[in-house]
Amino acid sequence: MLSDDHVEHIHRSSLQLLATSGVRVLHDGARRRLADAGCAVDDLIVRFDPEMVEASVALAPSTFTLRARNPAHDLVIGGRNIAFTSVGGPAFVSDVERGRRPGTHAEQQEYLRVIQALGVIHQEGGGPFEAMDLAPETRHLDLCHSLLRLLDKNWQGIALGRDRASDCIDMAAIGLGTDRDGLAERPALLTIVNTNTPLTLDIPMAEGLIELSGAGQAVCITPFTLAGAMAPATLAGALVLQNAEVLAVATLIQLVRPGAPLMYGSFTSNVDMRSGSPAFGTPEYTKAAQASGQLARRYGLPFRSSNTTAANTVDAQSAYESAMSLWGAVMGGANLVNHAAGWLEGGLTASFEKLVIDAEMLQMMAEYLQPIVVDDDSLGLEAIAAVGPGGHFFGSPHTMERYETAFYSPLVSDWRNFETWAEAGSIDARERAHLIWRQLLDESESPALDPAIDDELTEFVARRTVELLAQR
Amino acid sequence: MLSDDHVEHIHRSSLQLLATSGVRVLHDGARRRLADAGCAVDDLIVRFDPEMVEASVALAPSTFTLRARNPAHDLVIGGRNIAFTSVGGPAFVSDVERGRRPGTHAEQQEYLRVIQALGVIHQEGGGPFEAMDLAPETRHLDLCHSLLRLLDKNWQGIALGRDRASDCIDMAAIGLGTDRDGLAERPALLTIVNTNTPLTLDIPMAEGLIELSGAGQAVCITPFTLAGAMAPATLAGALVLQNAEVLAVATLIQLVRPGAPLMYGSFTSNVDMRSGSPAFGTPEYTKAAQASGQLARRYGLPFRSSNTTAANTVDAQSAYESAMSLWGAVMGGANLVNHAAGWLEGGLTASFEKLVIDAEMLQMMAEYLQPIVVDDDSLGLEAIAAVGPGGHFFGSPHTMERYETAFYSPLVSDWRNFETWAEAGSIDARERAHLIWRQLLDESESPALDPAIDDELTEFVARRTVELLAQR
Repeated sequence: MLSDDHVEHIHRSSLQLLATSGVRVLHDGARRRLADAGCAVDDLIVRFDPEMVEASVALAPSTFTLRARNPAHDLVIGGRNIAFTSVGGPAFVSDVERGRRPGTHAEQQEYLRVIQALGVIHQEGGGPFEAMDLAPETRHLDLCHSLLRLLDKNWQGIALGRDRASDCIDMAAIGLGTDRDGLAERPALLTIVNTNTPLTLDIPMAEGLIELSGAGQAVCITPFTLAGAMAPATLAGALVLQNAEVLAVATLIQLVRPGAPLMYGSFTSNVDMRSGSPAFGTPEYTKAAQASGQLARRYGLPFRSSNTTAANTVDAQSAYESAMSLWGAVMGGANLVNHAAGWLEGGLTASFEKLVIDAEMLQMMAEYLQPIVVDDDSLGLEAIAAVGPGGHFFGSPHTMERYETAFYSPLVSDWRNFETWAEAGSIDARERAHLIWRQLLDESESPALDPAIDDELTEFVARRTVELLAQR
Repeated sequence: MLSDDHVEHIHRSSLQLLATSGVRVLHDGARRRLADAGCAVDDLIVRFDPEMVEASVALAPSTFTLRARNPAHDLVIGGRNIAFTSVGGPAFVSDVERGRRPGTHAEQQEYLRVIQALGVIHQEGGGPFEAMDLAPETRHLDLCHSLLRLLDKNWQGIALGRDRASDCIDMAAIGLGTDRDGLAERPALLTIVNTNTPLTLDIPMAEGLIELSGAGQAVCITPFTLAGAMAPATLAGALVLQNAEVLAVATLIQLVRPGAPLMYGSFTSNVDMRSGSPAFGTPEYTKAAQASGQLARRYGLPFRSSNTTAANTVDAQSAYESAMSLWGAVMGGANLVNHAAGWLEGGLTASFEKLVIDAEMLQMMAEYLQPIVVDDDSLGLEAIAAVGPGGHFFGSPHTMERYETAFYSPLVSDWRNFETWAEAGSIDARERAHLIWRQLLDESESPALDPAIDDELTEFVARRTVELLAQR
């Protein structure tokens, strides 16, 4: 997507931006750390020395491992690995039966059970939607408790302020039967930190990243560079802004804890220039994802992309925009596809049906990434000769040996002919996805959790709830 | 997708198959031509000398141009060009209002008008569906007449038997104001020729290709290698069979007319091993498309792939299967994407709504294929400095200069927020596509056609109709 010269041009321009325009860092402690390391600080603006940025970013590892409660689900982030994460952060939840609505803790637990049941989802995204029936100050505690009870997969932490980040760290440690030192040695949390584009790092995000990086946990730096709104109306302009912001925050992270794991996150998309609405899964989005992967590799950093759509319902648009996003991620060499399953409405809603449809798309992509086997056995010249011109391979021994595992078996796709499909009620993909998650939920089982650990978590949540509500 | 060694392994195995199993050629004249050129003929089986195959295939051009009635729509097939073709050949037509039904000539004309209106469709696919209200012997005449009246784009010919192929050639010549010699010098027709996998060439297809290639028109050789049914249940096995069949037919074409233009077509997919149903847009399909592009380039031949789905309605499945197909075609370096718009139900139905949704997906892909511009102007460092940390780019001169053409503008996608979308009736992509083609049809205008040419076509159709019905 980008030539080597283009990558270097964007790199040099990013360093120039950081040295001249600088970054508005609203958090005192973060500014102090940057000043101590030699940055020029003028009121809230921090200007970076290019050599210091390059030296700092070079300290970040190119690969790291995130622990899961089930060691079989540990995630290697980096290299040629790709991990799929369920949607994180929406305000709403939706499904075919109940429509679109603010979510509850009970529905959050349903959603988590379906995530646990879908093997292609490698990581949970830090809460699929907000539980609006719980107090905002403490709902992260209930969420983390559910994550540890209902999943044996890895899950993302929350960076919004010091308290939430700190509680996530403590609960992850308890869940893994370890302490903060053990967790620092073998991290479990990856957390998204967004900059406020252009060139601003706010207080809650700075607090979160200092807490998490300080504890040796991984941070995924993701500027929200929406071309035509908070970024220039060109992909090159949005990419240079994204790149500068990633480098600035990566520098801060490496000052907090040299060698702390981090990711290069891209969320570059564009607005509809007629309305100002954000658009996702556009051709520009796909190109930006692919180009961002090249930039991440320029710095030897693991790369994060996403599966996005602006569609308001689980229709063809939601699928083709998601496909454009996913292919951008895969072609960009993404190591983590955030929001890989469930995202709808530009991220405002977590959809149960989209979760299942995306899981199908992810499974197809995973199968696509398996190489074609070409050898004498797979070529089957003897089988072709035995069948001969004009025959068929239905009952051939070459076929029968491969019968069960020859090809991808779908989750949602209906391959029956029209007549059979119509007789069975003409059920479309969205309705089939509804039936599938209902069944997965009905059949779901919670993975075993040591009762002592569960007790400790319960106690922690109870104590912290009282403490946090007392601060109201 | 394939290593160079894999490509050579498939190549050598294909030649071995052609030399040992051979191809069942049902048409006497075709067998005779192959025997005259040194093939060993045993009853219906023709066995090929590897060197003769390689020498013959090497005669085919790597690039050729197909004329359109409007010279601005001439198509260069080969090199780094990609052309999108509308669906060809289904038995049924469907739309949201009228459902799924056998088509009529009047509906065929509606479909052609929408194809003409969609600029991203570069070629018509030889009739979007059958006009069941017309006599089977003569309906190709009415179709060709409609193609010439309603389109100024290129359209595909029909290879099913000598008469149909010959009539297509004559009508294409009349439409372009030329004769058979002029058409041979500057071809206009590309026609799909399918083998009967495994290793069989039937009489109508052989007649058609001899007529078309003899007249210097282009033939796209496309084996229907359905892995697990008419081909082995491995991609390698299906690819070697596909490759052998393409080489055999390419050899025959070059014997008919050395240097005649042809394409390497791939339609390799797999069946659902549980039911035997053909599946499309599967991960295997995507991989086969990409691998087939490598094989085509091995022979210096232009490559044809397709946009396929097994879905029975225009839902998320239809979009994600089409996306997998399209990305396979693009990643495979396809020079022609057949059935690129309108295909539904494994090719049994041409859908009006799918035509529009596919056009959106094709437009997005075309935009994706435009490179990112990286220069001082697009990077916009001055604009970023002027906006400064914490600002926005809505009114920035850098944005205002690019306002109108900055980003892809969608055909079907609805990017409004949920509330606005819901207030406007919660119209999904399928229903929006319905409104769009209705409007395109209402506003459609037939491109000007010289009345003398139209008269000549009318006369030709009338004469040939009488002749063909007399043969009944």
